[in-house]
Amino acid sequence: MRRFLRHPVRLVPLVFLVAILISTGLLMLRPMTVDNQQTPFMTALFTATSAISVTGLTVTDTPNYWSGLGLVLITVLTQLGGLGILTGAALVILTVSRRLGLHNRMLVQAETAEYGLGDVRRLLLHIATTVFACELAMTVIVAGRLWLAYDEPFWQALWEAAFHSIQAFNNSGFSLYREGLLAFARDAWIGLPLAVGGIIGGLGFPALFEAVREWRRPTRWAVATKLTIWGSAFLVTFGAVAFLVAEWANPRTVGAYGVPDKVVATFTQIALARTGGFEVVPTDLLREESYILLMWLMFIGGGSASTAGGIKVSTFFLLAFVIWAEVRGEPDVTVGKRRIATASQRHALAVALLSVAIVAIGTTALIVMTDKLPFQAALFEVTSAFSTTGLSVGVLSSLSDGGQFLLTVLMYVGRVGPLTFGSAIALNTRRRLYRYPEEQPIVG
Amino acid sequence: MRRFLRHPVRLVPLVFLVAILISTGLLMLRPMTVDNQQTPFMTALFTATSAISVTGLTVTDTPNYWSGLGLVLITVLTQLGGLGILTGAALVILTVSRRLGLHNRMLVQAETAEYGLGDVRRLLLHIATTVFACELAMTVIVAGRLWLAYDEPFWQALWEAAFHSIQAFNNSGFSLYREGLLAFARDAWIGLPLAVGGIIGGLGFPALFEAVREWRRPTRWAVATKLTIWGSAFLVTFGAVAFLVAEWANPRTVGAYGVPDKVVATFTQIALARTGGFEVVPTDLLREESYILLMWLMFIGGGSASTAGGIKVSTFFLLAFVIWAEVRGEPDVTVGKRRIATASQRHALAVALLSVAIVAIGTTALIVMTDKLPFQAALFEVTSAFSTTGLSVGVLSSLSDGGQFLLTVLMYVGRVGPLTFGSAIALNTRRRLYRYPEEQPIVG
Ligand SMILES: [K+]
Ligand SMILES: [K+]
Repeated sequence: MRRFLRHPVRLVPLVFLVAILISTGLLMLRPMTVDNQQTPFMTALFTATSAISVTGLTVTDTPNYWSGLGLVLITVLTQLGGLGILTGAALVILTVSRRLGLHNRMLVQAETAEYGLGDVRRLLLHIATTVFACELAMTVIVAGRLWLAYDEPFWQALWEAAFHSIQAFNNSGFSLYREGLLAFARDAWIGLPLAVGGIIGGLGFPALFEAVREWRRPTRWAVATKLTIWGSAFLVTFGAVAFLVAEWANPRTVGAYGVPDKVVATFTQIALARTGGFEVVPTDLLREESYILLMWLMFIGGGSASTAGGIKVSTFFLLAFVIWAEVRGEPDVTVGKRRIATASQRHALAVALLSVAIVAIGTTALIVMTDKLPFQAALFEVTSAFSTTGLSVGVLSSLSDGGQFLLTVLMYVGRVGPLTFGSAIALNTRRRLYRYPEEQPIVG
Repeated sequence: MRRFLRHPVRLVPLVFLVAILISTGLLMLRPMTVDNQQTPFMTALFTATSAISVTGLTVTDTPNYWSGLGLVLITVLTQLGGLGILTGAALVILTVSRRLGLHNRMLVQAETAEYGLGDVRRLLLHIATTVFACELAMTVIVAGRLWLAYDEPFWQALWEAAFHSIQAFNNSGFSLYREGLLAFARDAWIGLPLAVGGIIGGLGFPALFEAVREWRRPTRWAVATKLTIWGSAFLVTFGAVAFLVAEWANPRTVGAYGVPDKVVATFTQIALARTGGFEVVPTDLLREESYILLMWLMFIGGGSASTAGGIKVSTFFLLAFVIWAEVRGEPDVTVGKRRIATASQRHALAVALLSVAIVAIGTTALIVMTDKLPFQAALFEVTSAFSTTGLSVGVLSSLSDGGQFLLTVLMYVGRVGPLTFGSAIALNTRRRLYRYPEEQPIVG
């Protein structure tokens, strides 16, 4: 058993599972609810998983169901989940890069060189400082706005601002408002800090630190950093433009807004829809093409080793480069004057296709379980859960326990990562000492 | 220009295009229609593409719109399309295997060894003989049944049987009956010959010939043959069982049938839904989970170098083996004691992901164009067109010219193959004489 667990790929899913179960127990304590009632197990499990996986899907009316203590617990779980992912991922990457002894310019190697390979504590401190500095800055702006423009009492404004800033930076989507950020869709002082914070948190520290440190020489960034930074910029820009075009004249969303308000609401929604999960524009009133756009953005998600979910920006664009090389008939896959190792290509392929398979099977299962859920709604909810985004077309509270459990599992697997999850079960630790002869089957 | 065209990857799309345009012109001749009218260009283009790409989608009421001459032309186009694919693919594979000088046991190398590399004529003859023998056998059984059990006049029975047998073997879905094979759903004498013929035509000759010749020693088949044969068997079996479970109690499809009839209708539908395109069970009355199943079967399609469309069975299962190797942490991807070349893996990846991208973009475009089409219906029609399947939930005739043109393009690209199509445009014929340093970016 100890030998089984020693492999880090098996440890990660287990740590998450234990954390979820403990949190479920805590959420079931009576003082956590407004009514001082014991929360049903399935509701507590769903909420704990949603918080720790920084998703933000809910089966309760968050502000009216959980007490102040419960909301603080949800905040703490979100922060721990987010920090755990950031630091855990950074540590795993450190371990991997050390063990593999890679000498090429890898995303974290620059990091490790700066910190000295053993100086894990300093890296963690740097991460924690960055997280809290960002959250503080977001809180100050949002709290000031709520206090000054909305006449909220100071402490109330501070609490609401801190709650939503922590949620946004960790790319989670719990809200103290029943309709998410709908009421603030046109308020740039609320929307933009949360959107920008969400984007930063969703980049991941390997890419973020290198981009900040080497901002003068973007051509020298590691491939993963280039893919993540430029890919994220492209996705936000493309997503916002496409969303604007699709919703421009939709009177039920941004159609009635003036042009500046249209832009603010769209940018905020797109930035927070990629994996954040706050509702800025009413999700259930969007045009069909906007649904498809949001589903793609959710599925792709954010940066590697970030609080974002999805298959990751670098995975998506790396695969695009692989396809382009194949179409062009190039023997090598080249990104920015670097040849991409076939191991990375295979990893990206496995992550993407496993994710497709999980979303497809999850959607089918949800449809079979619910019987009345339209295909598009089921696909949307499953994609949202698996990519730990937390947007919803609003069918969650009517789901059966089975349906809720399915989404819980999807959030968990999505957070752990489908490949890590699969490897935890199926990893072959025995090494094969021979190789079979090669064959080049013609496919396609 | 001549140099541009010399590359076979550019020739294939061009030949298809020219064939489609000539056929469009022929279909616009007045005697081709019942009313002796000139068919509108878009209708003729759609029908010609549908016939040559062996899809079977229609925007007309086939038996009541086209005259006998028109129907004969559609039959000829289907047969030429099917034969063209079979022989063209076989020839390309011959060329490729000769040029690459592969010495490992490839799917066609066994073929080329038997025929002597230059003896293309004999290979073509073998293919043609097999095609016509199968179609003849199917025609005899179906015609006999129509004649004896349905009291059809002998020549009428023969014509209908020949028409549908040619359609089924070539995996095309035009029908002389307004509702496809709905009336014969429970008639094993009609359904099974067409289903079995469709499966054989959809395997492709490289796999079929090797499987027939080496039927005693399936362990010695080439990897591509193993993937195609066992994969097809799995897909038909799994598909039929899943369909039976989903539709067992659906009164609008097979729910009212007795058990043997349920099995016959299901097997026929699944065998012909993978890329054939005949409607056996009313497509628009299926349960949602059956839709998802059919979409997957259409998307995967049949064997390489066959009349079937889709990403191909071998591509799908090869990717499954790649994922499995990655999950297990194996350095090599192994199928039946053979290591799979990374070139084949990359090819499979590119085919699958390009296809996903095309279906996604096509679905979005169709929704934007039509405005009222539900997401699921749009996805179904686009998947059907791109995989040259030809099943429809029945919205085609109400489509605008733009929507019809979109589906025409999808049938064309699906038939040519997305990778071949892309390479025809973007292939880089200059060789790069240097390689960039390798990098192993961490993704996922
Ligand atoms: K989220
Ligand atoms: K077809």
